[in-house]
Amino acid sequence: MTLTKTISPLATFDRVESRVRSYSRSFPKMFDKAVGATIYDTNGKPYTDFLAGCSTLNYGHNDRDLKAALIEYISADGIAHGLDMFTDAKEHFLASFEEHILKPRDMKYHVQFTGPTGANAVEAALKLARKVTGRTNVISFTNGFHGVTLGALAATGNGKHRQGASTPLSGVTRAAFDGYYGPDINTADLLERQLSDPSSGVDAPAAIIVETVQGEGGLNAASAAWLRQIEAIARKHGALFIIDDIQAGCGRTSGFFSFDGMGLSPDLITMAKSLSGMGLPLAVTLIKPEHDIWKPAEHNGTFRGNNHAFITAAAAIEKFWSNDRFATEVAGKADYLADRLGAIAEEHDLSVKGRGMMLGVDAGSSEHAAAICKTCFANGLIIETSGSFDEIVKVLAPLTISRQQLAAGLDTLEAAFESAMGTRRAAAE
Amino acid sequence: MTLTKTISPLATFDRVESRVRSYSRSFPKMFDKAVGATIYDTNGKPYTDFLAGCSTLNYGHNDRDLKAALIEYISADGIAHGLDMFTDAKEHFLASFEEHILKPRDMKYHVQFTGPTGANAVEAALKLARKVTGRTNVISFTNGFHGVTLGALAATGNGKHRQGASTPLSGVTRAAFDGYYGPDINTADLLERQLSDPSSGVDAPAAIIVETVQGEGGLNAASAAWLRQIEAIARKHGALFIIDDIQAGCGRTSGFFSFDGMGLSPDLITMAKSLSGMGLPLAVTLIKPEHDIWKPAEHNGTFRGNNHAFITAAAAIEKFWSNDRFATEVAGKADYLADRLGAIAEEHDLSVKGRGMMLGVDAGSSEHAAAICKTCFANGLIIETSGSFDEIVKVLAPLTISRQQLAAGLDTLEAAFESAMGTRRAAAE
Amino acid sequence: MTLTKTISPLATFDRVESRVRSYSRSFPKMFDKAVGATIYDTNGKPYTDFLAGCSTLNYGHNDRDLKAALIEYISADGIAHGLDMFTDAKEHFLASFEEHILKPRDMKYHVQFTGPTGANAVEAALKLARKVTGRTNVISFTNGFHGVTLGALAATGNGKHRQGASTPLSGVTRAAFDGYYGPDINTADLLERQLSDPSSGVDAPAAIIVETVQGEGGLNAASAAWLRQIEAIARKHGALFIIDDIQAGCGRTSGFFSFDGMGLSPDLITMAKSLSGMGLPLAVTLIKPEHDIWKPAEHNGTFRGNNHAFITAAAAIEKFWSNDRFATEVAGKADYLADRLGAIAEEHDLSVKGRGMMLGVDAGSSEHAAAICKTCFANGLIIETSGSFDEIVKVLAPLTISRQQLAAGLDTLEAAFESAMGTRRAAAE
Amino acid sequence: MTLTKTISPLATFDRVESRVRSYSRSFPKMFDKAVGATIYDTNGKPYTDFLAGCSTLNYGHNDRDLKAALIEYISADGIAHGLDMFTDAKEHFLASFEEHILKPRDMKYHVQFTGPTGANAVEAALKLARKVTGRTNVISFTNGFHGVTLGALAATGNGKHRQGASTPLSGVTRAAFDGYYGPDINTADLLERQLSDPSSGVDAPAAIIVETVQGEGGLNAASAAWLRQIEAIARKHGALFIIDDIQAGCGRTSGFFSFDGMGLSPDLITMAKSLSGMGLPLAVTLIKPEHDIWKPAEHNGTFRGNNHAFITAAAAIEKFWSNDRFATEVAGKADYLADRLGAIAEEHDLSVKGRGMMLGVDAGSSEHAAAICKTCFANGLIIETSGSFDEIVKVLAPLTISRQQLAAGLDTLEAAFESAMGTRRAAAE
Repeated sequence: MTLTKTISPLATFDRVESRVRSYSRSFPKMFDKAVGATIYDTNGKPYTDFLAGCSTLNYGHNDRDLKAALIEYISADGIAHGLDMFTDAKEHFLASFEEHILKPRDMKYHVQFTGPTGANAVEAALKLARKVTGRTNVISFTNGFHGVTLGALAATGNGKHRQGASTPLSGVTRAAFDGYYGPDINTADLLERQLSDPSSGVDAPAAIIVETVQGEGGLNAASAAWLRQIEAIARKHGALFIIDDIQAGCGRTSGFFSFDGMGLSPDLITMAKSLSGMGLPLAVTLIKPEHDIWKPAEHNGTFRGNNHAFITAAAAIEKFWSNDRFATEVAGKADYLADRLGAIAEEHDLSVKGRGMMLGVDAGSSEHAAAICKTCFANGLIIETSGSFDEIVKVLAPLTISRQQLAAGLDTLEAAFESAMGTRRAAAE
Repeated sequence: MTLTKTISPLATFDRVESRVRSYSRSFPKMFDKAVGATIYDTNGKPYTDFLAGCSTLNYGHNDRDLKAALIEYISADGIAHGLDMFTDAKEHFLASFEEHILKPRDMKYHVQFTGPTGANAVEAALKLARKVTGRTNVISFTNGFHGVTLGALAATGNGKHRQGASTPLSGVTRAAFDGYYGPDINTADLLERQLSDPSSGVDAPAAIIVETVQGEGGLNAASAAWLRQIEAIARKHGALFIIDDIQAGCGRTSGFFSFDGMGLSPDLITMAKSLSGMGLPLAVTLIKPEHDIWKPAEHNGTFRGNNHAFITAAAAIEKFWSNDRFATEVAGKADYLADRLGAIAEEHDLSVKGRGMMLGVDAGSSEHAAAICKTCFANGLIIETSGSFDEIVKVLAPLTISRQQLAAGLDTLEAAFESAMGTRRAAAE
Repeated sequence: MTLTKTISPLATFDRVESRVRSYSRSFPKMFDKAVGATIYDTNGKPYTDFLAGCSTLNYGHNDRDLKAALIEYISADGIAHGLDMFTDAKEHFLASFEEHILKPRDMKYHVQFTGPTGANAVEAALKLARKVTGRTNVISFTNGFHGVTLGALAATGNGKHRQGASTPLSGVTRAAFDGYYGPDINTADLLERQLSDPSSGVDAPAAIIVETVQGEGGLNAASAAWLRQIEAIARKHGALFIIDDIQAGCGRTSGFFSFDGMGLSPDLITMAKSLSGMGLPLAVTLIKPEHDIWKPAEHNGTFRGNNHAFITAAAAIEKFWSNDRFATEVAGKADYLADRLGAIAEEHDLSVKGRGMMLGVDAGSSEHAAAICKTCFANGLIIETSGSFDEIVKVLAPLTISRQQLAAGLDTLEAAFESAMGTRRAAAE
Repeated sequence: MTLTKTISPLATFDRVESRVRSYSRSFPKMFDKAVGATIYDTNGKPYTDFLAGCSTLNYGHNDRDLKAALIEYISADGIAHGLDMFTDAKEHFLASFEEHILKPRDMKYHVQFTGPTGANAVEAALKLARKVTGRTNVISFTNGFHGVTLGALAATGNGKHRQGASTPLSGVTRAAFDGYYGPDINTADLLERQLSDPSSGVDAPAAIIVETVQGEGGLNAASAAWLRQIEAIARKHGALFIIDDIQAGCGRTSGFFSFDGMGLSPDLITMAKSLSGMGLPLAVTLIKPEHDIWKPAEHNGTFRGNNHAFITAAAAIEKFWSNDRFATEVAGKADYLADRLGAIAEEHDLSVKGRGMMLGVDAGSSEHAAAICKTCFANGLIIETSGSFDEIVKVLAPLTISRQQLAAGLDTLEAAFESAMGTRRAAAE
């Protein structure tokens, strides 16, 4: 890593930023502005954003209404930082969340502001489950991602992140996600077998924590039936059932919750990423009231009262979730996306993974996937990989993207697949 | 906890917010606006803020210049959320930080954006220290506070927060903070004795992490000599020396770093709270370049690229830290504060604790301290307690507060002490 | 638990012994003498011993030759306790072990005297595997039993013993034993899938530890093919392959090692129970020389030099293992035992479990199994249960038992099954 | 480590025994017989044994009466191995222990047979304390030694043994032993300070475990007053008070318990080493009846019913502890030993450490101590070192040693000090 001799703004990063940085290695340009699904580098070149902050920008960059609400709030000297004091902005968010999210789904939850990162929401959920049950073991799943602070990291499967701990991680037992051992084995049955056996060596769990679609883990989508079975197993064995909806929630799979309509009733739900609507740090843990046995301040965090985020989060809820229109629109786009990715996959004898607007194509290897993403970037499309071997090319476009821009981005992607995989087909002829 | 029958905005919190909330119990009003050192409730009543977001609002609420910079940025569709991609806003922050903070102090550090909470910065620091040294044990101190995610929580002393984990915390050995056993025992000598004895049972540490002033722990201020000895012990025993400057940094003790001028050279420094200048979530871990051995993404976090915070952070650095004026001004206010609190303490035969603008009075008991804070609030002053028994009344006024408002707030505080403690003196006569 | 008023020797136990005692609850008589497969209570009543110290008395009680060797040694003031100093008795044991056990099998191992309990041998093996690999995770199996000290207990599946720890157990990942999920699922494939996936969340293991037949876990016998696959998985993933042969070894399955002839080459082997031949405490960990990287005394234990046990162990090796006769004899008895238990199982529509002279019948429930054992005891037969639900009636007769006594004991057992299960068949008619 | 070319019995060890062996490195001879305080090598050369199995042979090797009782028992086909069934031998031991040990001291305890190693007794004690209190943290002391299985090892201070774990050890907080920080600091006060502070970061303990004299840790002897204070601290904070009397008990400090007459009442007491009287493996945990809440078999161990050891243990109790004579005799020898070591220490400006017949001289360095022990061995005296730096030359002679043999051994020791340290004094002149 050597410094460029010419005076370049990127040299600052080389000099001063930690080597831990990652996305900037895939997209080595400096960006400054962004609107909707488009992000601009400092030379004014536009890029279509199929990464969307890893699903943090479901409503796009700088949505007009969210932006306006925020500017208005700041201009009027609205409180920015409020610890966990009562503020008008927080009340507004809670009321909107209750009115437009909870009530229509007949859900009753308390909202815990846990600190503004998803990891924090997960940490709070795991603590609370342990407190409620008096047990310490937590079941999480292969390829699951729940954050990198030590409590959340123990539940995370990703090997690179786990090694980052540089100390053994404990308190979590790994179970196999839906389909992990192929279509013939129902992994929920395996878990049930272990938990029903007092000498399996798997201690009675405080909680089972699961993503409905594993975003970082490779766009593995669990079936509703499997999730219901997991919930039933949790109930049967006295464990809390936690859905980590941080990446799959907020409309990514078309419903506000990724499990809308599946007949699930999680004890705890973690949310973050797109919750604030505009990319501002905000995270919550939703708690069934009977489990809300926290003592005051038992879990806290300086930035748990990020009022700017409350403002944009409330605006997003009101704009997108006060009726079904947005969900329907997203579902329609998801169908289109599925068709397009299906065609790419068929062309190259690959498979599509995921659900809703959280779809990808298994490119078969890290090398192929990286090559495809690199070509896309050169052609103005930001897109990334996921999966155990970074082998999945993952489309996480803003949900608000226009059909036209989506189509154009997919054209770029299709061409990149052609360019990277074309030889295979040729060879097969 | 019953709902109020009349329609009240506070009822929303009762219905929907988790019982974990804490500060709203001490200050049961709804607030909406804030400027400088004043915060307003929704009835327009002003309160002087001697809490300042637990030192997150060192430059006051909605500083004119920071606010203007942020509005300008948002208005121009500046990127809000950028994962860890290169952005103009981040470059600007890094360059300002290097120019005005690092260079004048002849410090060379890499800046890791760890996720925007202090706990995250601590988690990253502990992981990195373990990675660098290949050891797992960490030394932290009695009454230290470093956050509530499991890795940081293991290093935190606070019993209530530790119990919140509901699982044993490991990987940390506790040492006694400066003065913990009274003035006659040099606790650094005790630590040195243990680390020099291969059979003490205290494993060779990866790191020693310390606050120079323990904000949550009761405003215990370590001497420069003791800190230098701790750093020397870390060096001697191959451990990284970490200063957690999350609460004491950013001018709270008058220098940008709480250890400015002490002759210390920490391997890692954690910062958060007032770093963004306006209360927006932002945290960093500063890393001596030789220790920056992270692999890309080994530690990550969705909100580590909070560009709004980069904007206000850079503006704050340029406004307050491009020359010595602000530090000098704060030092002056700190002297005044020390005088006033000294007088209160003398009047009631109590003691003053802390350093700089991070001072408090030991009220002798939780009951007295709570009564004093309650009286203050009734009289328009927001102030809180800290310490093992919540016995310290803690003044954390914005550093930018005017002398006049500071004096008025202290008058209110003085009267509250009179009201709560007066009987003691009367009884003594 | 009240004291008997009449003066009874059993009252001493009631007054002075801990409530943790267990077998004395099943067999509430006081015993004093024992020879071969017969144990006598203090009234002189003989019992046939189908428990044999849980496979610690494979050569029966007080074998004439072992007894004679021991008396001779003690009479001549042979050293009883020698820490780990060189003694004649230890040299004799090592030489016999090398000559009659290792050499004929072309095995090359170092013998570590770990302290005289099986748990100690397991603790030493796990430590060493971690030291050799620099990893901390250990794979152990459902229903495995490896001892109750904390390191070994983490690897043990039994729920009652795990709860005894009263603290979370860590450092072990549980895999499914051969056949755990039924005949259609090859559990080794599942393990291979997890270890080959860098993001499964199962960390690269230091060791895989397995029993070939799970004695405490319910007489689950692994196939040779499965064990070879597990060894191959260990090799592939850089883990040490450990066979815990504490209960299944020393001839219990007819070979000296339970894996004789299976084509396995474990890196570490733990042995205890029948190793001393006469029930005296002795345990060893066998280590492939290339893994013997212990520093002097890194693992120790006061009683690791139990010279009385060296004497009887050497005598047992020379008597039973200097040629194939004993193994052949045991194999013959095992066939007979299998026939008899097979008949019982068939009669009651039950199944036989285990291998060699380590066989049992799954009685279907704890209630049935307990009733059967109780009837047996009333009729002069000591026999116990095992399995997750104590549902397996387990025959662990001394291997030296005469055919006649074995047959008589099995007659008693058969009748007890009739008595307990007869109604089921009647009901079915 | 190369094999000797000539055929030597020691070559067997080189070929077959693990490199972990330790004492055989200091005393590289092969031994075969031993009586009283004398041990013989295979050439018939006698050595006086000032190591005594690290205090396991308090009554010497092969005591005539213990030996006779054991031979008689074996000859009569007494049960050798009885799991935890009721046996005549166990009843006899328990009755003797109750009659001669517990009753005269007005102590009421249940006896748990934990498995026959000291580590096992410690593991059982720590588990039970955690179970009784529902807490997981245990306080143990600098330089303490409690065994090397993972649970016990966490409580052990010795660095070499801790590193042997090759995995982090948890669940234990280290406190400073009596005098650890010099004569001016009462370390019990430090512990009390931490436990009384809810935010010290030292979690409320399940137990405080302490040795009255730290045998392995360097013959550090706690004062009765300090031990009483530690017991009071345990009571105050709801922790069980555990005395580990494995090395210091059984008469080593003249009373049967090392704390006889100190006014202590431990909740749990661990015993092993000399308990069996003849060096046979035996360990117990003594439990105040109100704490004996074990469920049957919650803690177990194959060799917990070592009946040979019950026979010799009962014989030892009856021979040595049915009246005060032995204790008085030991106290007399201890005075003589103190005088002699005092003279040596004075001569070389060194200090004496320990209590009773558990005394040593701090030789100032590992090099000096090793040289002294080596010289002693060459002159027919077996003696070892202890302490954090192996700097203490430790006399652990059998308590039954004759005055004459004790004096002769001390002459040898005195000469070895002269030989090793003489130059220092000459230099000083």
